[in-house]
Amino acid sequence: MSPKNLQDVLDAAGNTVELLRNSQLGAYVYPVVAPEFSNWRSEQRAWRESAVLYDQTHHMDNLFIKGPDALKLISDTAINSVVSFPVNRAKQYVPTTPAGHVIGDGILFHEAQDEYVYVGRAPAANWLLFQAETGGYDVQIEVDRRSPSRPMGKPVQRKYWRFQIQGPQAWNIIEKLNGEPLEQQRFFTMGTMSIAGQQVRTLRHGMAGAPGLEIWGPYDSYDVIREAVLNAGAEFGMVPVGARAYPSNTLESGWIPSPLPGIYTGEELRGYREWLGADSYEALNAVAGSFVSPNIEDYYHTPWELGYGSFVKFDHDFIGREALEKIDPATQRKKVTLAWNAEDLGAILTSMLDPDALPYKYFDLPLANYGSSNYDRVIDADGKTVGLSMFTGYSSNERRGLSLAVVDPDVPEGTELRVVWGEPDGGTKKTTVEEHRQFEARVVVSPVPYSNVARADYQGGWRTSYGK
Amino acid sequence: MSPKNLQDVLDAAGNTVELLRNSQLGAYVYPVVAPEFSNWRSEQRAWRESAVLYDQTHHMDNLFIKGPDALKLISDTAINSVVSFPVNRAKQYVPTTPAGHVIGDGILFHEAQDEYVYVGRAPAANWLLFQAETGGYDVQIEVDRRSPSRPMGKPVQRKYWRFQIQGPQAWNIIEKLNGEPLEQQRFFTMGTMSIAGQQVRTLRHGMAGAPGLEIWGPYDSYDVIREAVLNAGAEFGMVPVGARAYPSNTLESGWIPSPLPGIYTGEELRGYREWLGADSYEALNAVAGSFVSPNIEDYYHTPWELGYGSFVKFDHDFIGREALEKIDPATQRKKVTLAWNAEDLGAILTSMLDPDALPYKYFDLPLANYGSSNYDRVIDADGKTVGLSMFTGYSSNERRGLSLAVVDPDVPEGTELRVVWGEPDGGTKKTTVEEHRQFEARVVVSPVPYSNVARADYQGGWRTSYGK
Repeated sequence: MSPKNLQDVLDAAGNTVELLRNSQLGAYVYPVVAPEFSNWRSEQRAWRESAVLYDQTHHMDNLFIKGPDALKLISDTAINSVVSFPVNRAKQYVPTTPAGHVIGDGILFHEAQDEYVYVGRAPAANWLLFQAETGGYDVQIEVDRRSPSRPMGKPVQRKYWRFQIQGPQAWNIIEKLNGEPLEQQRFFTMGTMSIAGQQVRTLRHGMAGAPGLEIWGPYDSYDVIREAVLNAGAEFGMVPVGARAYPSNTLESGWIPSPLPGIYTGEELRGYREWLGADSYEALNAVAGSFVSPNIEDYYHTPWELGYGSFVKFDHDFIGREALEKIDPATQRKKVTLAWNAEDLGAILTSMLDPDALPYKYFDLPLANYGSSNYDRVIDADGKTVGLSMFTGYSSNERRGLSLAVVDPDVPEGTELRVVWGEPDGGTKKTTVEEHRQFEARVVVSPVPYSNVARADYQGGWRTSYGK
Repeated sequence: MSPKNLQDVLDAAGNTVELLRNSQLGAYVYPVVAPEFSNWRSEQRAWRESAVLYDQTHHMDNLFIKGPDALKLISDTAINSVVSFPVNRAKQYVPTTPAGHVIGDGILFHEAQDEYVYVGRAPAANWLLFQAETGGYDVQIEVDRRSPSRPMGKPVQRKYWRFQIQGPQAWNIIEKLNGEPLEQQRFFTMGTMSIAGQQVRTLRHGMAGAPGLEIWGPYDSYDVIREAVLNAGAEFGMVPVGARAYPSNTLESGWIPSPLPGIYTGEELRGYREWLGADSYEALNAVAGSFVSPNIEDYYHTPWELGYGSFVKFDHDFIGREALEKIDPATQRKKVTLAWNAEDLGAILTSMLDPDALPYKYFDLPLANYGSSNYDRVIDADGKTVGLSMFTGYSSNERRGLSLAVVDPDVPEGTELRVVWGEPDGGTKKTTVEEHRQFEARVVVSPVPYSNVARADYQGGWRTSYGK
């Protein structure tokens, strides 16, 4: 009998880690948007040096939450405080399990009285849907799932288009489009502007200190708005960013898009797992990388590990609060950028040119991830696992390989560690995996967002015992 | 006033080479088909080791030619003989200009009495349309242009789907689908087979000695046929090939898809250039690479250079015959594969990791072309241009960079030459070009189709004077 829900899938598989590490889903795709408009190197440079149009229309779930209990639903499930969450503000919403593990994250837009929109990956969307359905909340939720990964010429429809205008020239383009100056509100504050005669909603955003906006509107105005923005931006060097370059921008800005939702274990979540479909994100998503533990819980994260410690507010009751209150933040891993050693990344890139040896795992450019959630071992000089590398690729702006990672709290910036690149034993059965060898690549622990730091210990690399 | 036709475009530009080398068209895309289904390394290996489904539905023009003068139109414009061209045979059709330069090439299917279908790039399709329209032929032609390069979620419709079933396991899959044995006819002979209860037409094809088929049918059966083929093929290790891997298959099989049509010069072609639109392939296509000549005619080819010498048959009158009759084939450049030196290709791949120096031109994998037509200088040890590298990429099966090239007739197999990789002066203004330096990469002249050969002169590389 075919499984009816996630719990069935897990029961049939027996081993959750094996199941997810051998998912046949394929690559986590940024769909519909063309891979490249100019080329991914120039598109990366444009967000640093001129301006870009990010097209975020297709790769995220949208959840439209309405009703008198909408805020209560959010408050009951968020580590975030909702004490100050007026209309026209947005928050990075982070729900946790009863055990205090992060389920996912996304942006919650407070669009009108009792109306919120969640935009992000499926796990937090599914959790909101489940809680709304089973928790007795007086809310209506409409869900608009991400676009298909491989539409193959079939028409794609969404409720909204969603763009960002970013880069050092972004505000010049925004004011040109608007036809008059536009107030630069506080980060994550919403407003409106005029584009091509239409009023569109805005969210104050920014990259590397340069103010920008996220804008959205009904999908049928997609072409008109996109063309107007690109036309206005041309004189400022604006380019549209394609699906190859787009997800690599977070290597520079530091958000980890892809934590595994901590929902596979715990009796108190059995009901949720029985609610989740056998074809849900949670059932199909692919875990990739060198980190292999028999215990799926070793892939879970607390909010502090992912850099969400400042969001945790015990000013309200929420699922997971009790567990989180018991945690000393100082014991938690911390988010860092890992700057890859050029020689070692070069060895990976060139291993495919040796006809006599199995290559290392292919490092695709500019994004090297090969699963929905990526977990590569980060080891110290003793070979001890001191962290997990979770999002890996290359930045033309830095001319470096970069990973976003979580590492033990006592690992100082500037130290040398190694990322174990590739999966053991020739690789799993994921469709994204060709047979390969593993390679230990040197990396330097660096800040988030990334900036270049010298290594504290050039010769040796960091040993766990140093910190004790 | 905006240009109305190609001739206007050329007149306005003044310099055809500059115009095409700075085209803003963008990459030559293999559209609609997903970039990867599994991953491009595994997809490449599958065509060598098991079986693949090539999806050729979207990247070529289809021209449906009907009428009593159809064969005469073909005969008058083809270097090929049509003495033996019965129904259910196909030919690789090659038209030339009055000066004997190749315009393009494609496959002509003789589908029924007085009914032919041309499948290929636009240049030969446009030439057939022009000749039919202006030559007084009693034919009707319907054209179905290639799919848009970046459909961005808009629906795509074609008249036909077109697949190939290829690889060493292909025939097992074909006979399983057909439900009974199927005669392996001669190469380029057409027939029929049964798939999912439908009779589909077939063209006998093959790769590396393994028999395969090209199949086609009405577009509304695309999903049914594709799914049936993949389901039947699963047990034989068949995978669908995505848009990244697909065009790299010719690096192993040796067809050059992208010669520049020799139509930009010559008073006798002015009428054709005035007929071609200002938005035609010929007006917009991008010429890429290190070879820069002020004379666009230096980018033209005779049939012999491209390996079509055996097609030239003076048993009929055709446009270009007079010019071709004057050519001694022995003086013509010849098609070869160039096998890239691993160390030098490695230097190109890793140059992006040096933060202190401008990188070499990015070598995308598995296809490194960055224009519609690619022209890299191939030089000998004296720095003399002895050929043109025209299609470049990487094969996981060979673990090598490979180029298809034309080189001087006296250059023997096994000799070492160099490909000048990248454009001079930091690069042109093409959108596919990021600022870069040039690099001279060693290559070994090898057979077409590729097979590994030892270098004749390991130390020095080949000098032009050696051959004199």
